[in-house]
Amino acid sequence: MTKWSAAKRFFIGNPLPTEHLAYERLSKIQALAVLSSDALSSTAYATEEILLVLVVAGSSAINLSIPIAIAIAALLAIVAASYYQTVHAYPQGGGAYRVVKDNLSDNLSLLAGSSLLVDYILTVAVSISAGVAAITSAFPLFTPYRVALGVILITFMTVVNLRGVRDTGKVFALPTYLFLISMFVMVIVGLVRYFFLPQTISWIAVSVGTTESVQGLTTFLILRAFASGCTALTGIEAISDGVPVFKPPEADNAGKTLLAMATILITLFLSITILVHLYRLTPVEGETLVSHLAHEVFRGAPWMYYTVQVMTALILLLAANTSFSDFPRLSSFMAIDGFMPRQMAQLGDRLVFANGIITLGVLASLFIIIFGGSTHALIPLYAVGVFISFTLSQTGMVKRWLRLRSPNWRHHATFNAVGAFTTGIVLLVVITTKFIHGAWLVLVLIGIMIYAFKSVHRHYETLAAQLRLTHWKHPERLEMKHHKVVLPISGVHRGTIKAVKYARIIADDIVAVTVDLDPERTKKLQYQWAQWHNDIPLVILPSPYRSVVEPIVRYINNLFSEEEGVWITVLMPEFIPARWWHHLLHNQTAFLLRSALLYRKHPANRLRVVTDIPYWLRR
Amino acid sequence: MTKWSAAKRFFIGNPLPTEHLAYERLSKIQALAVLSSDALSSTAYATEEILLVLVVAGSSAINLSIPIAIAIAALLAIVAASYYQTVHAYPQGGGAYRVVKDNLSDNLSLLAGSSLLVDYILTVAVSISAGVAAITSAFPLFTPYRVALGVILITFMTVVNLRGVRDTGKVFALPTYLFLISMFVMVIVGLVRYFFLPQTISWIAVSVGTTESVQGLTTFLILRAFASGCTALTGIEAISDGVPVFKPPEADNAGKTLLAMATILITLFLSITILVHLYRLTPVEGETLVSHLAHEVFRGAPWMYYTVQVMTALILLLAANTSFSDFPRLSSFMAIDGFMPRQMAQLGDRLVFANGIITLGVLASLFIIIFGGSTHALIPLYAVGVFISFTLSQTGMVKRWLRLRSPNWRHHATFNAVGAFTTGIVLLVVITTKFIHGAWLVLVLIGIMIYAFKSVHRHYETLAAQLRLTHWKHPERLEMKHHKVVLPISGVHRGTIKAVKYARIIADDIVAVTVDLDPERTKKLQYQWAQWHNDIPLVILPSPYRSVVEPIVRYINNLFSEEEGVWITVLMPEFIPARWWHHLLHNQTAFLLRSALLYRKHPANRLRVVTDIPYWLRR
Repeated sequence: MTKWSAAKRFFIGNPLPTEHLAYERLSKIQALAVLSSDALSSTAYATEEILLVLVVAGSSAINLSIPIAIAIAALLAIVAASYYQTVHAYPQGGGAYRVVKDNLSDNLSLLAGSSLLVDYILTVAVSISAGVAAITSAFPLFTPYRVALGVILITFMTVVNLRGVRDTGKVFALPTYLFLISMFVMVIVGLVRYFFLPQTISWIAVSVGTTESVQGLTTFLILRAFASGCTALTGIEAISDGVPVFKPPEADNAGKTLLAMATILITLFLSITILVHLYRLTPVEGETLVSHLAHEVFRGAPWMYYTVQVMTALILLLAANTSFSDFPRLSSFMAIDGFMPRQMAQLGDRLVFANGIITLGVLASLFIIIFGGSTHALIPLYAVGVFISFTLSQTGMVKRWLRLRSPNWRHHATFNAVGAFTTGIVLLVVITTKFIHGAWLVLVLIGIMIYAFKSVHRHYETLAAQLRLTHWKHPERLEMKHHKVVLPISGVHRGTIKAVKYARIIADDIVAVTVDLDPERTKKLQYQWAQWHNDIPLVILPSPYRSVVEPIVRYINNLFSEEEGVWITVLMPEFIPARWWHHLLHNQTAFLLRSALLYRKHPANRLRVVTDIPYWLRR
Repeated sequence: MTKWSAAKRFFIGNPLPTEHLAYERLSKIQALAVLSSDALSSTAYATEEILLVLVVAGSSAINLSIPIAIAIAALLAIVAASYYQTVHAYPQGGGAYRVVKDNLSDNLSLLAGSSLLVDYILTVAVSISAGVAAITSAFPLFTPYRVALGVILITFMTVVNLRGVRDTGKVFALPTYLFLISMFVMVIVGLVRYFFLPQTISWIAVSVGTTESVQGLTTFLILRAFASGCTALTGIEAISDGVPVFKPPEADNAGKTLLAMATILITLFLSITILVHLYRLTPVEGETLVSHLAHEVFRGAPWMYYTVQVMTALILLLAANTSFSDFPRLSSFMAIDGFMPRQMAQLGDRLVFANGIITLGVLASLFIIIFGGSTHALIPLYAVGVFISFTLSQTGMVKRWLRLRSPNWRHHATFNAVGAFTTGIVLLVVITTKFIHGAWLVLVLIGIMIYAFKSVHRHYETLAAQLRLTHWKHPERLEMKHHKVVLPISGVHRGTIKAVKYARIIADDIVAVTVDLDPERTKKLQYQWAQWHNDIPLVILPSPYRSVVEPIVRYINNLFSEEEGVWITVLMPEFIPARWWHHLLHNQTAFLLRSALLYRKHPANRLRVVTDIPYWLRR
């Protein structure tokens, strides 16, 4: 075992046999925990993002957070209802990519796919940033290291996912429910204090509300606050993607779970927004709004405050973790369809799509580094991808109902049409209001990705065409009339003796060639060659510019033009050093010659074979 | 022509034919300029380095600069006289490495060689730093960019030297003599003003002299000042290394030039030290001492000041440039002797030792970066190597006279013995006084280099022993009783058809193998294979851990244990994409399999041949 593979084993564990591949089926209670962490965790930042926009328009504008939150809650209900349809229509899992590919077109499915991929990357970046913010709010000591903390967390999650997460249901259930409990306790305690013990609340937080407005309250600003709050919807599609993990009857259980999740999400999001409003809190630098709220609510019970913070950080980590299964899975689908490199669909040692996991880890870390680990800076990029995929997927569903005309199709189609229309409008709002703040970047990225996916697909298609056995125009060109072995040598030694032995077996026509760099050495070589192999001609190639590769390549190309139908095997005696650093002490001529013969374009390429005849050194 | 080679041509020019290799012979006037820039340029910083040590002991200590400078001048005379002997004894060029190898031992020659190599690197680093300091003294605007400036200058010199410097005599003569003229003009003008017009001198510079001593004046401190000043001796050996470039009679001309250089160097160094003393100058931050002196002397004639600065910078660049011929030349000698990688002795496109030039450029840049481009920080590292090679080379000469007993050998031996003894003592002083300031690092480096050189030599020796045709114990092990072709495939396509055609030519026993990753695909493959090549067996290898490489390697190793005397050719159908990025879209299985078969240790290695049967894609 090499050092490299020992390290690999240590970090990600021993390889698992393919037969261990089996789905773990989840109960509704477990599935709710596994599949909704992404959606539920967004309550940790959605309210704050709304207020961050409104706050520039002064204290009166802040009151608008309640109607905006209600609008978002309504949107949430509509989208959930739409996806309820999808769950039943696609019990095998109805991700936007698949729904769009089935019902609309390949191009639109690439748009949906790349939107989702960007969104998965952003889910990791945003959730990790928000999780780090929850930690640094409680422990401000760590604030300067938030980028490093974020990258460390992502690296850790990458390694954990490369090992493969077993028993996810049990692992996920606990923190998710603890998060929900701690949040609802906070809401209840907060409301009780507000209505029954208002004298115990310190009203010191009312600071920004008293300042004058910096900017007028425009419709645009309200829409932008709404768009920022729409990040609450991210992750809502997770259940419809994951129908097959439910215990049977899958679709029914998934549908019920989806409704439960939507109800919890709407309740929690509205409660937090209302509580923040009642406590007259506004965003401050260095502490998250939820942390601020928990501080106020649990004044006198710091352990409850820390519980909320830790649970928030944990659920955000879980949310990020969902992308580590979504991204590789979608990538593998797209790789199977030929839009991504095939390696994305390759199961690694531990039965996970290792390449997808690593790609996600690297890209999310890049986002964290580029945006300085700031949730607020990342938010404008977020939600664009989600709403593109929402709109496309609902539109696809409408097309599906119109096509299938199954019982109740009008009813179903109406639901999805309302969903498609609403999310389409929201998409326009999101793009318009966040364009200069970062949405443009997402659109550019999606454009580049679609172009790349199409290029990859074209390559695989032309590859298949070039390798296909049917309609092969010139197979006769490969007929071998004569086989010649060319043996480049620079000295006569055990390695060349071995090469000659081999050459005699595979061909009758053998020629040795050497490049004349030093007349004295060449003379000595000629003498030695004549002693050992005087039946094999040795051609001396001049090299006025001291290149070894060029004269040999030219010589071989000339052989092709001299004789029709000749196949040439270039037999390269190559000694393999015993230690890696010994490679540095040799000229790598064999490597350079091999590259020149294989990778340079030449009409005779197809009749050229390169053989390494290795001679192993023991020391 | 690829993009890479086009860029290479643009920067370093077209390749030159070997026949253009010819030595340019230099007249004494030219040779003085070419070979003494290193030695002469050290006057730009040697005086300052002495004062920087003394200044910590207060104003009275500064007066010691004169006796210290005289001691260094005497040392210079002794060393020059010693080398005068070497010039006549080694008209073919008597570098320390060769002299020590001839007269002492291989191990000591490695010590001399590595000392010299370290010194050449430091010559570049120190001269470039001092040259940059001359520029930033005149134009303080550039001070913050001194590291970048240094690296840019080194890169520029690397490229110029990779092109190959033709007509060096003419190019070097002008700046060297202009430097000497401007320095001597400064000295004369300075003395005239001091003795005849003292009222025109502003005595503002007398600042440090009035402060109290920070540290007692100890013998150690005096010795350290002396050791720092000994950097004035660096480069004095250049003429003895370069005897063959002189016009005949080479030794006579070289000897005369050496004496002329020593005289000029001693005069200039003493003059500058005395003038600095008379003008009561002490080192200040941000301006070199020579710049300070030129400012004072040429008060009222700024153009003269700028001339001195520009000439100083130029001669320092030339000094650095001498290392760009010395380092690659010495490396090539050591490579020919088998102590350095052979590539160091390989003439590049432009008839220069390109690998040595690049190595020097990279290492010198590293030193500049690590030491922040500060001459003063680099000086303690400097001179250690010079004095090791001085001492060894003079000792070698003594041994030589004792051995040869040529006419006047007693006389000659005495001269060299005095040289060896004096430089040996100075070496001890340099190491002791500068040890903690950086000399230790040089000693560590030299130790590592000697170890590396010996390892390289051992490798080349065992390599030769392993390849030698005489005393070959088991050549019969290579007898081929049976030749089998193993053809790993993952599908049936034009590439495999070509491979089978080739396999049929080179062997009668062919077996195709495939790794079963997906039962469905394997079944399809079996069917197709039977259609196209039903006479060739297809072996299906199970792979519980989804590895493609491992089952094939194990299968092949088993074949060896099953049959005595079998040679196996692993024939790998490999398609070569039309564009570089297409490589990313394939699994690189061929590459991994090839590495595993060639580089992993296995008893059957010697009977294993790997053949790439390429199929070129057009698009």
